[in-house]
Amino acid sequence: MLKSPLQIERGKYIPKMPTSLKGIVKIVEGEKTQSVADQDQIKAMFPNTYGLPILKFETGNEMKQYPAYKVGVVLSGGQAPGGHNVISGLFDGLKACNPDNKLYGFLGGPSGLVDNKYKELTADIIDEYRNTGGFDIIGSGRTKLETPEQFDMVHQNCKALGVNAVVIIGGDDSNTNACILAEYFAAKKTGIQVIGVPKTIDGDLKNEVVETSFGFDTACKTYSELIGNIQRDANSAKKYYHFIRLMGRSASHICLECALETQPNITIVSEEVEKKQMTLDQLVSEIAEVVVRRAEKGLNYGTVLIPEGVVEFIPEMKILISELNDILAEHEAEVAVLESNKDKRDFVASKLSKASSEVFNSLPNNISNQLMLDRDPHGNVQVSAIETEKLLMDMTKAKLKQLKKDGKYTGKFGALGHFFGYEGRCAIPSNFDADYCYTLGYTASLLISEGKTGYMASVKNLTKPADQWIPGGAPITMMMNMEKRHGELKPVIQKALVELDGAPFKKLVENRESWAMNSNYLYPGPIQYFGPASVSDVTTQTLLLEQSK
Amino acid sequence: MLKSPLQIERGKYIPKMPTSLKGIVKIVEGEKTQSVADQDQIKAMFPNTYGLPILKFETGNEMKQYPAYKVGVVLSGGQAPGGHNVISGLFDGLKACNPDNKLYGFLGGPSGLVDNKYKELTADIIDEYRNTGGFDIIGSGRTKLETPEQFDMVHQNCKALGVNAVVIIGGDDSNTNACILAEYFAAKKTGIQVIGVPKTIDGDLKNEVVETSFGFDTACKTYSELIGNIQRDANSAKKYYHFIRLMGRSASHICLECALETQPNITIVSEEVEKKQMTLDQLVSEIAEVVVRRAEKGLNYGTVLIPEGVVEFIPEMKILISELNDILAEHEAEVAVLESNKDKRDFVASKLSKASSEVFNSLPNNISNQLMLDRDPHGNVQVSAIETEKLLMDMTKAKLKQLKKDGKYTGKFGALGHFFGYEGRCAIPSNFDADYCYTLGYTASLLISEGKTGYMASVKNLTKPADQWIPGGAPITMMMNMEKRHGELKPVIQKALVELDGAPFKKLVENRESWAMNSNYLYPGPIQYFGPASVSDVTTQTLLLEQSK
Repeated sequence: MLKSPLQIERGKYIPKMPTSLKGIVKIVEGEKTQSVADQDQIKAMFPNTYGLPILKFETGNEMKQYPAYKVGVVLSGGQAPGGHNVISGLFDGLKACNPDNKLYGFLGGPSGLVDNKYKELTADIIDEYRNTGGFDIIGSGRTKLETPEQFDMVHQNCKALGVNAVVIIGGDDSNTNACILAEYFAAKKTGIQVIGVPKTIDGDLKNEVVETSFGFDTACKTYSELIGNIQRDANSAKKYYHFIRLMGRSASHICLECALETQPNITIVSEEVEKKQMTLDQLVSEIAEVVVRRAEKGLNYGTVLIPEGVVEFIPEMKILISELNDILAEHEAEVAVLESNKDKRDFVASKLSKASSEVFNSLPNNISNQLMLDRDPHGNVQVSAIETEKLLMDMTKAKLKQLKKDGKYTGKFGALGHFFGYEGRCAIPSNFDADYCYTLGYTASLLISEGKTGYMASVKNLTKPADQWIPGGAPITMMMNMEKRHGELKPVIQKALVELDGAPFKKLVENRESWAMNSNYLYPGPIQYFGPASVSDVTTQTLLLEQSK
Repeated sequence: MLKSPLQIERGKYIPKMPTSLKGIVKIVEGEKTQSVADQDQIKAMFPNTYGLPILKFETGNEMKQYPAYKVGVVLSGGQAPGGHNVISGLFDGLKACNPDNKLYGFLGGPSGLVDNKYKELTADIIDEYRNTGGFDIIGSGRTKLETPEQFDMVHQNCKALGVNAVVIIGGDDSNTNACILAEYFAAKKTGIQVIGVPKTIDGDLKNEVVETSFGFDTACKTYSELIGNIQRDANSAKKYYHFIRLMGRSASHICLECALETQPNITIVSEEVEKKQMTLDQLVSEIAEVVVRRAEKGLNYGTVLIPEGVVEFIPEMKILISELNDILAEHEAEVAVLESNKDKRDFVASKLSKASSEVFNSLPNNISNQLMLDRDPHGNVQVSAIETEKLLMDMTKAKLKQLKKDGKYTGKFGALGHFFGYEGRCAIPSNFDADYCYTLGYTASLLISEGKTGYMASVKNLTKPADQWIPGGAPITMMMNMEKRHGELKPVIQKALVELDGAPFKKLVENRESWAMNSNYLYPGPIQYFGPASVSDVTTQTLLLEQSK
């Protein structure tokens, strides 16, 4: 494999680990756990994996003989920086526990477990991927493991290969399914353990035992680099507003973290939009107001951060999208025969409720076309494909035109749009993510060797230097509650949205007026893997603020 | 000014300089020069600044007393990483030459010289901006200095302030104008010297005496970081083609350099498209062919690099755009009253030549709409606003659909578009650009102190360690030839396009088949300012290949 100079140097990096994992390790049981809500229901559904104690690994004094394992590992869902380090930490940990341990990678995501596609991960393969970005070592996929038929296939395949533990690296849904699988295997007395690892750049898999999901640090730093560069450009050229949409559909953690790193003029947080029950027009008015006030100071440039999923948090847009899904399903053929987009829009608008048709007609044509025409394979509006930055640019422009007519605005407004997502999901993991992921993988190997199942690898005390980190395991059931999914109540890991009374959001609110009216831009620059620890070893503002409370 | 951790650490960086500039410096005259072409005409137009010798600065042994200067500096045109270092090198050099020297920054680009907007740049201001990206220290602008009236204003303003030397940091056009201004001032015996500094991320200001323009290194590395990250994502998810458009309208140096850094599957080079007189359909067919052949190997993902300006290099598109400019100017009112875009397109198509109307009708609607509707203030098609990546994505998709129908393609094609430009123009300068720019500025201070005018600061031997660099000056007239601009022959600095027989392009051609069919992706990662020199101090592949010939 031909490698870039940085790839070569990163290959030599030795991830930092907690002191407690370096020599002889002992396991310490903590308190028994309860699920975050709906205890009775969750307990009934997970008789074998409910109520387990929190686990911690500490320095021990008695050398332990661990049994030999064959472990399968799977990468589930969207890429996040550090996945390869979880696998290399898992590999090294397994070899340290018992040199006879073997590691198999199931290929292309959870479907690899069902379809029995795998390869053995040996030292020479692992060494090629240490401290690299991407999930390409074994690939990833979005197949959901949730039916008994799938579980039986997995059981069969594991049995045939002799695999007696499976590590699932994924987000909240994948870890929910990991837990269901663990329970299923336990109930069937298959002897196969299942351990989860918390992955997602979105940052929405976190709770009292999981301080952060891996990849969030690196992805946010990559986006912040770009936002900072754009801000410096805006501040130099002084002629454009940059509307920057950031990945993260359900929660606005990425947007908030990047705002704390770069101090842009306007930051939209979906959770706040929903809390205030804002209309699209109100959101646009708020942006326009800042533009007007900056223009009064002679500042006709700036930056706006927009979370990818914000339209779904605007109540009227949510209703509109839901109505569109129904109308387009019912009238597909009628819409298809209409020749021009204008005719299609008029037809669709005539079928919408009065409120929704008003919203629909207020949208720029390119956006309403997109809502009508870009459908996913199930025929639904593709919310993630909506170019929300252009929607808001166009609507802000229209609003400012009106304000100019009314004599309330005399500035100049030029806007450019950006979307960042794929740019950060496979970045070379930061030192934090390289260390954190390696430790997570290593911890997973110990949970397996100790015979545990239904646990998620957990590493706490993350804002301290790595040698003081506290590795352990948390029963996945403790993170669960009952939620409606496709009309049915299901046990799921509670998603962590941005808390409007949390320290990170409060910091944004405290500074909002100053950041809006001045140009207090911060320029974080690219991720540094070498150099002073103040630059290369610091984690996210989100985690620092949350943990300092 | 609140600063990020990296901003703080970069503030401490001491740029590396050639040994020859570190102690006592002497100036050495080289050979007299000729312009690259049209010698008689250029000589006649520049009687005072033509035919001057190449200059070099070497270690001297006799301390020199330089006269005191008041120097004005201006940033012209688009941002490029390192502008602040040119200014800090200039400042430090001026203070070293004579502690009484003063530096004034003219604000907002060349218009600052005309409108007499300036501020004195003192040590405390300079110190805030050392090794930072952006042009915000004094701002930039695109006003062209080219009329005698403007020159007289500049003269008046300089005289009033006592400024007796002006440094213009800009691209080929700005340096052409710097030379015209130098000649004008010399002819009028104003005693005001003019020195140019070669800036542009586009990399198209280079020749035998200017090895590269500053900013190219940092901008390309920033784009390459992102391309590498996206490639790792493509290679992990294995389901998307990423069409990535890169800034650089006239020349494809950025695209070529990024290709050499990242090894994508397809790289479009505008100069080759023009040389081969390709049609849009041919270009799309070439992309589709690679997609088909990769699909046959089971690879339904990849990357395509597209230079921003490519449509202008496709002969039929160039003609179409030119016809559109004329038609829309003549029939503006008639087009405006038509209600739907379809009607507008039909009207416009009816006025085009047969060949152009065929091309126009072959374009996806969103692109033909853009060509018709997005006009610059002069009413012309905004070529830089054309979303060429989407054009090529849509047309490739249509082509593949046809191939599928014909039984020649059985793969899956999903595509995502990206555009990178503003993300790199104000990045924190790489060590190379920080050192190079500082040295350029320092060299400019010596050219001034030696009483030179009409020179561009030049630093050669750039692929060697900085202590071996050779600083000097090159008469700007030597880079000039006569070219038609707006129908008139003008003396201009010859733009450096990608040479199709040059080493960088040849390397692409040699590897094209292998990079297309395999996934030989390189992942350069983000710019590193610390760490091993192999990572942090290496310049572009373009420069390394050009200089190794």
